[in-house]
Amino acid sequence: MNTQDKEKAVVAGMAPLTAQVIASFAATSDARLRCLLGALVRHLHEFVRAVELSDEEWRRAIEFLTAAGRCSQGGRQELVLLSDVLGLSTLLVRQNHAVPLGATEATVMGPFYLPDVTRFSLGDDIANGAPGTPCTVSGMVRDVAGSPLANATVEVWQADGTGHYDVQLNEGQRNRGVLQADEAGAFNFRTVVAEPYPVPTDGPVGDLLRSTGRSAWRPGHLHVRISAVGYETLTTHVFRHGDPYLESDAVFGVRNSLIAAWQPQSDGTYALHFDFVLSGQRNG
Amino acid sequence: MNTQDKEKAVVAGMAPLTAQVIASFAATSDARLRCLLGALVRHLHEFVRAVELSDEEWRRAIEFLTAAGRCSQGGRQELVLLSDVLGLSTLLVRQNHAVPLGATEATVMGPFYLPDVTRFSLGDDIANGAPGTPCTVSGMVRDVAGSPLANATVEVWQADGTGHYDVQLNEGQRNRGVLQADEAGAFNFRTVVAEPYPVPTDGPVGDLLRSTGRSAWRPGHLHVRISAVGYETLTTHVFRHGDPYLESDAVFGVRNSLIAAWQPQSDGTYALHFDFVLSGQRNG
Repeated sequence: MNTQDKEKAVVAGMAPLTAQVIASFAATSDARLRCLLGALVRHLHEFVRAVELSDEEWRRAIEFLTAAGRCSQGGRQELVLLSDVLGLSTLLVRQNHAVPLGATEATVMGPFYLPDVTRFSLGDDIANGAPGTPCTVSGMVRDVAGSPLANATVEVWQADGTGHYDVQLNEGQRNRGVLQADEAGAFNFRTVVAEPYPVPTDGPVGDLLRSTGRSAWRPGHLHVRISAVGYETLTTHVFRHGDPYLESDAVFGVRNSLIAAWQPQSDGTYALHFDFVLSGQRNG
Repeated sequence: MNTQDKEKAVVAGMAPLTAQVIASFAATSDARLRCLLGALVRHLHEFVRAVELSDEEWRRAIEFLTAAGRCSQGGRQELVLLSDVLGLSTLLVRQNHAVPLGATEATVMGPFYLPDVTRFSLGDDIANGAPGTPCTVSGMVRDVAGSPLANATVEVWQADGTGHYDVQLNEGQRNRGVLQADEAGAFNFRTVVAEPYPVPTDGPVGDLLRSTGRSAWRPGHLHVRISAVGYETLTTHVFRHGDPYLESDAVFGVRNSLIAAWQPQSDGTYALHFDFVLSGQRNG
């Protein structure tokens, strides 16, 4: 069966109204858009039928989405947060950024990434005065065969010792920067230990978490984005071993393979070492 | 199986991430809310997997919903309009307001209903100067056994001869009012003929209709809401026979049983007669 026949076959077994709505999109010239809207209508109608959604529940859902859209301004994006707490963001990562065995697993990018930030030299302190317990971070970037990826680009960002990102405060850029690994694929920098923090709870998603008894907290983590020519860009976190929120991450981002120990040092600081393995590009 | 066992059985056959997200709502004290969120997560995850949604498609969906929420202010409700053009509003009507054979079918209420409007006497002109072709509307309100519903409350509202509702203009209340049927269940009033109009197309839903080649037009119709003690309140339209948009109503509200002829009169005006049959209350 070609795509059009498949679409017709799916429609054939369907409630008349659902089939009518899907048919209303038949003139869509973009075949992918037509497929997406057809599937969206089918799944939404199935949901409404499965739960026998009431008029009042529908009204509250409309109000929820309206409030979420209206409070999304500037750095705040409540619909991304909704996608996060419903596990959709993590589902997309696992579906679209699956890696071969041996490569470092990806996780969600989160809302705090910034492109084009300050470039640091290896060994620099990226904290820029941010409060927190000092630590050093070091690691290697390799491919799945174990070969070092010389000069890989390593972008890092994280919360400070109070659980805040620089973009949530007014202190300029802190705990954020881009480094270049050396010829052996090695990198290192100084920063502070990333502490746990709650996702924003002053909007409709916060209401949802409260009314369902869910935790808003994310375990402490370092965000890392690594790119090298010829390899899939890796967007991931390193999570802190022993963090109390590893089992209940509000956005379902934790993977066992991404948990590492920040090792206490004799001078009261910490040291993290984590190696990253990139997979080859899928198309080329 | 009780409800909790059923929920567990559904979760058992599920992808681990989806099961994990559903389990995160386990502490929800409101059992109905827990059921709704579990089903929502399951259907949304199924949709994302079925279409293999890309990161870019997800980003555009977030942008679409954000724009829809942000342009919903005052009389404008873009998320209701989205629900309308995806057939969800009509699905809810058919699911939650099904009527027994012989009773008048319901259809969507639309965004232009107002409670507590001017009360008219039978025979009055509700147009209040609105442009359009004059017409008279008359009808009977009965129950399914054929007995007249004396003193039933009949609320009516409609577009004018230019396809606009009063709330979209600044001319005060027009083409809108509440009447009381007489002892025999009969009512009548004067107004203008309701003309077809497009749903608002200057927001994200308009973009959706354009990019899918769909018509934004609704066929001309008279909105009616009839209530009587002991009966289900009926919210419906009467559609104009011969209207060019009956087959392509942007919100899927048309039902064959609701199409009627506005009869031309010798003086150039029109006359509509339509009888409404209410069903008994479901609970009591």
